Amino acid sequence: MKKKVGNRIVELRTKKGWNQSDLARECGKDRQAIEKLENGKVNPTIYSLYEIAKALKVDFYQLLKF
Amino acid sequence: MKKKVGNRIVELRTKKGWNQSDLARECGKDRQAIEKLENGKVNPTIYSLYEIAKALKVDFYQLLKF
Repeated sequence: MKKKVGNRIVELRTKKGWNQSDLARECGKDRQAIEKLENGKVNPTIYSLYEIAKALKVDFYQLLKF
Repeated sequence: MKKKVGNRIVELRTKKGWNQSDLARECGKDRQAIEKLENGKVNPTIYSLYEIAKALKVDFYQLLKF
């Protein structure tokens, strides 16, 4: 389930042509945090996902729609 | 934002005619945990929300659709 969220982030990030560092910069996280999220290595809080969604300019719930 | 998720849980729970104890039992949490979630007192992880969604028999992303 964490992996599915991670895949969704990768999908939305690459759609924008961003690499992990671009996304990290946009949401004020470090690249390692993004890498862990994308690989499903962490169980993110909703606030953390909210920041990602904001950076990606997508509606929050879209990160969980899979 | 946590409060919005909490309100959404209240909305979906009461629609089923459940009280907090009913929901707690269905998802294997204690009632205090549900109370905190509903009042936006905690920043839940996505896994925690996933368990709530499963208990409420709604799609995961619906908890974040507000």
